[in-house]
Amino acid sequence: MKNKQIRKIIHTTVILLSFFYGVKTQAQKQVDNSNIEQAMIKALEWQEAHPIFALAPTDWTNGAYYIGVTRAHQTTKNPIFLAALKTMGYTNDWKPLYRTHHADDIAISYTYLYANSTRKNLVDLAPTKEFLDTHLFEPNEWNNGSEKNAEQKILWWWCDALFMAPPVITLYTKQTGEQKYLDAMHKYYMETYNLLYDKEEQLFARDTRYQWGVNKKDLKEPNGKKIFWARGNGWVLGGLALILSDMPEDYEHRNFYVNLYKKMAARIKGLQQEDGLWRTSLLSPESFNHGEVSASGFYTFALTWGINNGLLNKAEYTPAVTKAWQALAACQHENGMVGWVQDIGADPQPATADSWQNYGTGAFLLAGSEILKLK
Amino acid sequence: MKNKQIRKIIHTTVILLSFFYGVKTQAQKQVDNSNIEQAMIKALEWQEAHPIFALAPTDWTNGAYYIGVTRAHQTTKNPIFLAALKTMGYTNDWKPLYRTHHADDIAISYTYLYANSTRKNLVDLAPTKEFLDTHLFEPNEWNNGSEKNAEQKILWWWCDALFMAPPVITLYTKQTGEQKYLDAMHKYYMETYNLLYDKEEQLFARDTRYQWGVNKKDLKEPNGKKIFWARGNGWVLGGLALILSDMPEDYEHRNFYVNLYKKMAARIKGLQQEDGLWRTSLLSPESFNHGEVSASGFYTFALTWGINNGLLNKAEYTPAVTKAWQALAACQHENGMVGWVQDIGADPQPATADSWQNYGTGAFLLAGSEILKLK
Amino acid sequence: MKNKQIRKIIHTTVILLSFFYGVKTQAQKQVDNSNIEQAMIKALEWQEAHPIFALAPTDWTNGAYYIGVTRAHQTTKNPIFLAALKTMGYTNDWKPLYRTHHADDIAISYTYLYANSTRKNLVDLAPTKEFLDTHLFEPNEWNNGSEKNAEQKILWWWCDALFMAPPVITLYTKQTGEQKYLDAMHKYYMETYNLLYDKEEQLFARDTRYQWGVNKKDLKEPNGKKIFWARGNGWVLGGLALILSDMPEDYEHRNFYVNLYKKMAARIKGLQQEDGLWRTSLLSPESFNHGEVSASGFYTFALTWGINNGLLNKAEYTPAVTKAWQALAACQHENGMVGWVQDIGADPQPATADSWQNYGTGAFLLAGSEILKLK
Repeated sequence: MKNKQIRKIIHTTVILLSFFYGVKTQAQKQVDNSNIEQAMIKALEWQEAHPIFALAPTDWTNGAYYIGVTRAHQTTKNPIFLAALKTMGYTNDWKPLYRTHHADDIAISYTYLYANSTRKNLVDLAPTKEFLDTHLFEPNEWNNGSEKNAEQKILWWWCDALFMAPPVITLYTKQTGEQKYLDAMHKYYMETYNLLYDKEEQLFARDTRYQWGVNKKDLKEPNGKKIFWARGNGWVLGGLALILSDMPEDYEHRNFYVNLYKKMAARIKGLQQEDGLWRTSLLSPESFNHGEVSASGFYTFALTWGINNGLLNKAEYTPAVTKAWQALAACQHENGMVGWVQDIGADPQPATADSWQNYGTGAFLLAGSEILKLK
Repeated sequence: MKNKQIRKIIHTTVILLSFFYGVKTQAQKQVDNSNIEQAMIKALEWQEAHPIFALAPTDWTNGAYYIGVTRAHQTTKNPIFLAALKTMGYTNDWKPLYRTHHADDIAISYTYLYANSTRKNLVDLAPTKEFLDTHLFEPNEWNNGSEKNAEQKILWWWCDALFMAPPVITLYTKQTGEQKYLDAMHKYYMETYNLLYDKEEQLFARDTRYQWGVNKKDLKEPNGKKIFWARGNGWVLGGLALILSDMPEDYEHRNFYVNLYKKMAARIKGLQQEDGLWRTSLLSPESFNHGEVSASGFYTFALTWGINNGLLNKAEYTPAVTKAWQALAACQHENGMVGWVQDIGADPQPATADSWQNYGTGAFLLAGSEILKLK
Repeated sequence: MKNKQIRKIIHTTVILLSFFYGVKTQAQKQVDNSNIEQAMIKALEWQEAHPIFALAPTDWTNGAYYIGVTRAHQTTKNPIFLAALKTMGYTNDWKPLYRTHHADDIAISYTYLYANSTRKNLVDLAPTKEFLDTHLFEPNEWNNGSEKNAEQKILWWWCDALFMAPPVITLYTKQTGEQKYLDAMHKYYMETYNLLYDKEEQLFARDTRYQWGVNKKDLKEPNGKKIFWARGNGWVLGGLALILSDMPEDYEHRNFYVNLYKKMAARIKGLQQEDGLWRTSLLSPESFNHGEVSASGFYTFALTWGINNGLLNKAEYTPAVTKAWQALAACQHENGMVGWVQDIGADPQPATADSWQNYGTGAFLLAGSEILKLK
């Protein structure tokens, strides 16, 4: 038997195998919308089977995850997402976590507000309102500056907070029509912006510990540059897309958010790496030279949202987000688990193929929910 | 190398593959009891991993699902079913849902009563008793006719209710010996029968909106016939099998239920389609010409129960239910998900291979639980 | 084409298959630490997807399971174990079960104490303290001998109790520094030891019903020997490893536990069967001549712990535990389910490949958690 014959037999066998076991050729692996939704469903299924939290199931980690679930449902209308969301909310009595001075603890309410829009008499929004009233309108050690820690002198003193609270507040005003919440949001947002936004770099410091000229000693990357944390800026940029989704077109301060969004979007696009993903340290990508999924997911979500909503140039940004999604999808394991997620932290640290967190899955779902809308 | 040789090699390879990967030939795929139980387990596992509800985990959707789980355990004694049932009941504090005038909200208690029969000090039946006492013996806008909606003038004004409440009540009387519950059940059952049963068609109208000569305008199928909803009649016929399972042989009104069951069984058998399944519109199968799993599951359960309990002619009905089960089993996805389930509604609507609901899984489990007993 | 050619083609095909589908050759199947951790993860995932309990999710069955989860996390630091543990504890409000006279109902608190060591403000230990205070220092029908059942005349009247309560109490003293709990543990432990330990056989009777010369009639195995239940002794030996893990090196009674541990370890090693596993009846292995996973898991855990901690001779015991682990691993199904677990009981009964229980998974995880540390 000649080599040609052997090759033919093996070829026939492989085709048979493809038929029996669904082996996909490269051509079949091309991203299409059905593949994206399937990847999102697998991510959800794995995450639902692996519940995790830091302090409680209503903490920010689950908040970020279920915000991803929320947007996944908004885009796909697939009941698998809404079912998971309702089960979570019902189980938690539609309550935020208890620390009313802490933006982290209200993030989950974004998902309750969405669930509330799907059915009457389903969601109890009283705990959300109570939290917001206390958080925004009652004095606490952060919003009145009485906290001893030097970096915690404003309500939202760390940039992650701009994802945790402002989108909830914006959506709350949208649903209730009560302007005072949105105005309070803007007031506190400006405090954070004024404190942490680095106009030169067009990025946010995670908190004042990472700023220069503020502390006893300036923290630097090995290459001498400032420390800008990818996920920290992911919280901000992703948060802006959420805020702008619900902020009235005629809100007097809307332009501030639009402009901030556009500037950051351009800056972040410029920091994307060759493989389509971002590194945990934005200005020192060589520190941990691998893609990180939570930051990259938030960026992909936010940039694609900008394309889909006419804020970013489609021709310019589409290749970047398409490449990013392909790279994100490659970080998902066969069983649905989304890997390469940096653990809980406050500054750039490495991740691995096996490091997962619910908020990483959330970022993945957020990204997919906008990629699906790309035309 | 000749074609014969190639075929031989491929054949050998496929046999090798069968050995390594468990490929089943057609012959092996024949339905046997082990396959049925495996299909039921897979359905349970998928559904447990995808909790869903309309209003709360104790609503009728979960009620119908867990009634399926209950009967699956009763037949198989496989602890996987009882474990799921106990976990659900414990998590819900063995409570029905809160709307005491609404038959939907007591369906779940059927499963609590069963769990109670498996172990002492496990189940708190007080909330079930309290619901039933209020539902049956206290006035409300439905049972006293004060409701404004014209179609809601009796307690069980929609035919689905005959699945939701009567089996629970019958089982409650069986366990407690308190006759007054069963008598109240019969009183309300007769009201519904008298209102909604179409003697000519031997089917139930879903509610008075679908009856002719009652409303301003008669609702009709495109073919001019009355609208008889498959699932609506599935609730009634499935409910009758449950009721008769627990109703004392010497109950004075038992014959009424036996006769109604037999008439409907014959009628439903006659409406089965070539593929073994029923369409969502019983008299207009061409409207949505595909099998629907929730109705078909309830029918298969009820008809097979009748064979197993000597109410239906075995030789006549067995081919119908065997064919129905084969067709139901083919609606289950590889991952265990039961598809082709019509969404929540009140009249015939289409389903798809991907449309699933917990009550569809419940109907599937009910069907399997009786098919397993066929001799 | 010659046979040699055909063999070559098939060989090539199988290699191709191995490449595509991850078929493992025997060589690859050798136990390494990565395989062990993967097997443990699969066991956890299957068990989390199949919650089960006897009386409540905080009962001893889940207690034993989550003690396995706890030690799995302690060894691997894999967050998948801690996430499951925290979710369980949070869901149960960090409460033990309610029967404060019953050692079974405090077993779960071992896992709460561990969770407490991982993060501040996460665990509420008040219910655990309250249970222990009542259990150890308040009179009840067992500890004061007022119980009517003849075999229930001491607090821990059945040998299983030595796994359920003493490790919790030892760990509680370790974390709080309150010596009185450990002293009370020792007092009650000695009562059980004095009542149930058979010095001749160096095994524990499950309770006085299985002792000779105590009851009206002596219970015997078909071969005329005493009934020593494998799992019962697994509770004791596994419990000893847990107790010794946390008991201060200078505790005045520590030697008693070390000596008891060593004696039982030697005895149990001698009762291991050819296949590496133990039978449900230790002195009548022919009664049900197959390995049982809960007992074998506890033994493997305890013996390996002894090797790892210098209490047992490494050269002598390592082959036994390695063989045991290989056999345990073979009892796990492809889907992760751990089979061959004897059901809830009090004496030797058979198991099957399909019989599973959460405590069996717990024993499997305990075994793996120490096997991973073997050097």
